Amino acid sequence: MPQYKAPLRDMQFVLHELLNFEEHYSKLPAFKDNVSRELLDQYLEAAADFCENELSPLNQTGDREGCKWDDGVVTTPAGFKEAYQKYIELGFPSLAVPEQHGGQGLPGSLGTVVSEMVGTANWAWGMYPGLSHGAIRTIEHHGTDQQKAIYLPKLVTGEWTGTMCLTESHAGSDLGIIRSKAEPNADGSYAISGEKIFISAGEHDMAENIIHIVLARLPGAPKGTKGISLFIVPKFNVDADGNVLDRNGVRCGSIEHKMGIHGNATCVINFDNAKGYLIGPENRGLNCMFTFMNTARIGTAVQGLSASEGSFQGALAYAKDRLAMRSLSGIKAPEKEADPIIVHPAVRNMLLTQKAFAEGGRALVYLLSQYADIVEQGETEEERKFADNILSLLTPIAKAFLTETGSESAKHGVQVFGGHGFISEHGMEQIVRDTRIACLYEGTTEIQALDLLGRKVLQTQGAMLKDFTKIIHKFVEANKDNADVKALIEPLAVLNKEWGDLTVKIAMRSMQNPDEVGAAAVDYMYFSGYVTLAYLWAHMAVVAKQQLAAGSSEVDFYNAKITTANFYFKKILPRVRSHVDVIEGGLEPLMALDAEHFAF
Amino acid sequence: MPQYKAPLRDMQFVLHELLNFEEHYSKLPAFKDNVSRELLDQYLEAAADFCENELSPLNQTGDREGCKWDDGVVTTPAGFKEAYQKYIELGFPSLAVPEQHGGQGLPGSLGTVVSEMVGTANWAWGMYPGLSHGAIRTIEHHGTDQQKAIYLPKLVTGEWTGTMCLTESHAGSDLGIIRSKAEPNADGSYAISGEKIFISAGEHDMAENIIHIVLARLPGAPKGTKGISLFIVPKFNVDADGNVLDRNGVRCGSIEHKMGIHGNATCVINFDNAKGYLIGPENRGLNCMFTFMNTARIGTAVQGLSASEGSFQGALAYAKDRLAMRSLSGIKAPEKEADPIIVHPAVRNMLLTQKAFAEGGRALVYLLSQYADIVEQGETEEERKFADNILSLLTPIAKAFLTETGSESAKHGVQVFGGHGFISEHGMEQIVRDTRIACLYEGTTEIQALDLLGRKVLQTQGAMLKDFTKIIHKFVEANKDNADVKALIEPLAVLNKEWGDLTVKIAMRSMQNPDEVGAAAVDYMYFSGYVTLAYLWAHMAVVAKQQLAAGSSEVDFYNAKITTANFYFKKILPRVRSHVDVIEGGLEPLMALDAEHFAF
Repeated sequence: MPQYKAPLRDMQFVLHELLNFEEHYSKLPAFKDNVSRELLDQYLEAAADFCENELSPLNQTGDREGCKWDDGVVTTPAGFKEAYQKYIELGFPSLAVPEQHGGQGLPGSLGTVVSEMVGTANWAWGMYPGLSHGAIRTIEHHGTDQQKAIYLPKLVTGEWTGTMCLTESHAGSDLGIIRSKAEPNADGSYAISGEKIFISAGEHDMAENIIHIVLARLPGAPKGTKGISLFIVPKFNVDADGNVLDRNGVRCGSIEHKMGIHGNATCVINFDNAKGYLIGPENRGLNCMFTFMNTARIGTAVQGLSASEGSFQGALAYAKDRLAMRSLSGIKAPEKEADPIIVHPAVRNMLLTQKAFAEGGRALVYLLSQYADIVEQGETEEERKFADNILSLLTPIAKAFLTETGSESAKHGVQVFGGHGFISEHGMEQIVRDTRIACLYEGTTEIQALDLLGRKVLQTQGAMLKDFTKIIHKFVEANKDNADVKALIEPLAVLNKEWGDLTVKIAMRSMQNPDEVGAAAVDYMYFSGYVTLAYLWAHMAVVAKQQLAAGSSEVDFYNAKITTANFYFKKILPRVRSHVDVIEGGLEPLMALDAEHFAF
Repeated sequence: MPQYKAPLRDMQFVLHELLNFEEHYSKLPAFKDNVSRELLDQYLEAAADFCENELSPLNQTGDREGCKWDDGVVTTPAGFKEAYQKYIELGFPSLAVPEQHGGQGLPGSLGTVVSEMVGTANWAWGMYPGLSHGAIRTIEHHGTDQQKAIYLPKLVTGEWTGTMCLTESHAGSDLGIIRSKAEPNADGSYAISGEKIFISAGEHDMAENIIHIVLARLPGAPKGTKGISLFIVPKFNVDADGNVLDRNGVRCGSIEHKMGIHGNATCVINFDNAKGYLIGPENRGLNCMFTFMNTARIGTAVQGLSASEGSFQGALAYAKDRLAMRSLSGIKAPEKEADPIIVHPAVRNMLLTQKAFAEGGRALVYLLSQYADIVEQGETEEERKFADNILSLLTPIAKAFLTETGSESAKHGVQVFGGHGFISEHGMEQIVRDTRIACLYEGTTEIQALDLLGRKVLQTQGAMLKDFTKIIHKFVEANKDNADVKALIEPLAVLNKEWGDLTVKIAMRSMQNPDEVGAAAVDYMYFSGYVTLAYLWAHMAVVAKQQLAAGSSEVDFYNAKITTANFYFKKILPRVRSHVDVIEGGLEPLMALDAEHFAF
């Protein structure tokens, strides 16, 4: 059973040495006086303690036990409720909520770092408090003062949780075709009716009330995405002071039997003339939701990083311990009946792949959380706009690339264990099952890829991409004479240029046929992901070299960074070549076969 | 719930048009008079009927219900036992067993084709009769006449089943370190003691007796792989006429909770002074086992093909039915509220990938089964030797490559379903879970890769590889002026040459450091797999073109073959480039990091 250990040293490396979070906060008026490096480290320690000792032990038991549904009532696995109470007592739910709403006013980026630990220790559990964020932010940004006063206080303390009710059985990626209805009541509220599915944490026993944010159509609303409105629908009706009254017409019809995240209740929620309250303008529900799309997607990117980190921790411990065969280059552990499997190059390749994705993914997620801070709290419009561009570009990359590579890492975790990896007790197969959903929800990998190439890159005529490739270009220029990292900087420079050229090529093609965008998008996303991580790995290597040159005593730590960067460039980055060649192949091979002739 | 439909037309294409099985059988004395095309087709129809109507409906229920263990007794899921009775009544167990042992004397290749259908319909079920083959063949080839007379008749009818008991908790890939003991009894039998794990179908309620083939050490046996002997250990002792007597000291200690194949019992089997009988020479147990390694591994390769076929069938039906978004190139189904998702290039890419792996994998597996027939029944020593070389080379490729691509296909199946893919009722996530084991058992992907590059290619100084690349070369030469398939033949010719060059490069390096073999092996296996399938796809395209030129009325079928071949060359085959580049990166990036410095 893998016991989670928060990788604090590596987190601190990214926060303090790579991305200089203290300096970053010092430039944001909201945080410059209240977030020091010491405070950050204190929160890290507290979160690590909670995640290692409270959440990690519930990860496998939660998977085995799962949630139970009985006539609309959902019971979470043993210990989940108690852990949630502790989480509330420790004040985690209110961490990144502004003080005027009862929060601690700390940066969202700190919340992201905490969510990595929560997610790696126990993703299924983490989704209960995790889903509340979307509801809180929706009400915070689009609610009336009264709505804020009624719902926010208890959501912020964690006494209540929240959900996002979007999907219907026939409508997932395509929300334009949802059918749930909202009929106006005489008192200004609405009667919400319809069936929502895949509602994570939609019903459970951990909180006094659940506040659903629901997409539905008003009578006579325009068809498609421009006729969807957003409603607050509480499980229990509440009075103006936030006291819980009678039960609303909201019922959990069933919970799904699914591949993983068994500890989290994935609910069918039936709204039967439930009392709801319009939030935001009529028919603009999707726009309100999209405000938080980036943050929700970064949250899912964290799941990919978590899978890489968790499976790496499990596989590394096993690879040092398990004995099998002798090294091809001669016996390494003569006192044992066989060598530990970490001597075998194929095993090392899997471990280093996990490590490169975990640490590289961490750098990417934390970088995005910085940009998200700036979007929210940046001093000037220009800063905010620039950060929003980078964030918009990198979010679908991080979401799709880190969840897919997280799945790959989880697969390696099983593989390092051999046949034992298939057995539940070792916990490695659970990571494969749990993390698979990350490639599906919040927009599948294919949807992210289209968002990246279609909306973010081509629709802006490459402007967002240029903002980012310029950052890489500057980094390359600043380090081009650094002999220490030449082997990294040179290929990075080439790929950074190729990113633009490849984009132009696809743009030209897509003018002939817009389906060329769909044909290229997934491979383009992978290309972008590998190059983005290459930039971050080169950057980490440069920082590590600097620390060594400055005489740091942590020689092994920094050398490991440099070694892993070299591994990434030699053994992972070459994958871009195939993606470029596949893009080269274009649309035709995908469309030549008539739908009726796929099978006979 | 996906209903399996045997792809009979495609099977017949491979059997009759691509590989000319009738001609193949006509050259084998054992089969030339008793296996016609009509007989083959009759068996296919019978197997399809059984698999579609008896096994497929039990696939999801078996997964949900799983096996139950109670004090050493294992109960299989509802319906499994009854299906097994029907399977026996239909005579399937004895299909490919020689007539002198009570079998039908049909070719092993026919058994392979049947096993594809069984496996795709219900892999977990298929392992109960599947595991018997190893036991039957071990006794057939290495047993005394008395042992054959006692054990074979009921194993062949299927009244009894068999297992292979190799793995121990500490010893999986490395069988040299097993600890189970065999002490001689006064009566010439042996007292077998030890604990074996991961024994598929090790205990169940489907047969009267279970015959275990067990690896154990004699007293004073040499250490390592040269001190292991093989024993027959029946669950119930039997008399000389094969009547079941008292219970032997064999007990199922528990069954594993695992990622998939829940319908199959993966058993811990405890031998406590169980009565066993030496089979084959003392200390030569592993050699006896290795005789069947190729067939067992082809059996596992079938699981990969099954995963590709099964997930393709499920995803294709869904992609034609599910509506979401509009095609980027304009509305395709104006009468519907959205287009079926098969219009989207990314969805088509996943479907075509599954299709290319399923149909290409089928061609590879059936080709191997032909060589296996020749190894067993070929008329001349020369034929048999040549076939054995090709089989030895291609088996680790088929096992590793088809199981990994089967896993990939299964992943695409989930992805095509979006969030619904994660939900158990649709059956797509089950394929991911069930097929994961195929990359682990019968030697992991990494072990297969070492077997391929180390034992089969480098240890033979490339002789086996040359035998196969010559076949490809001949094919290329025969078709180089065929303008119809130029786009396939040219890249195939280049890659076929590169295969040899790449091998020489690795061989040179490995002389400096044998670990270079381990560093290159997995990528070399992928390279080999993609090129092998490229050859088969080009071959299929040539055959399809010939049929069209000959005026076949099945224009859509043959065009689909050609289209899929083009897809494979344009969209799958470019993956070789990255594998070559990664091999280029060599050993150093994998070994530079000290085992103690992987994490801090």
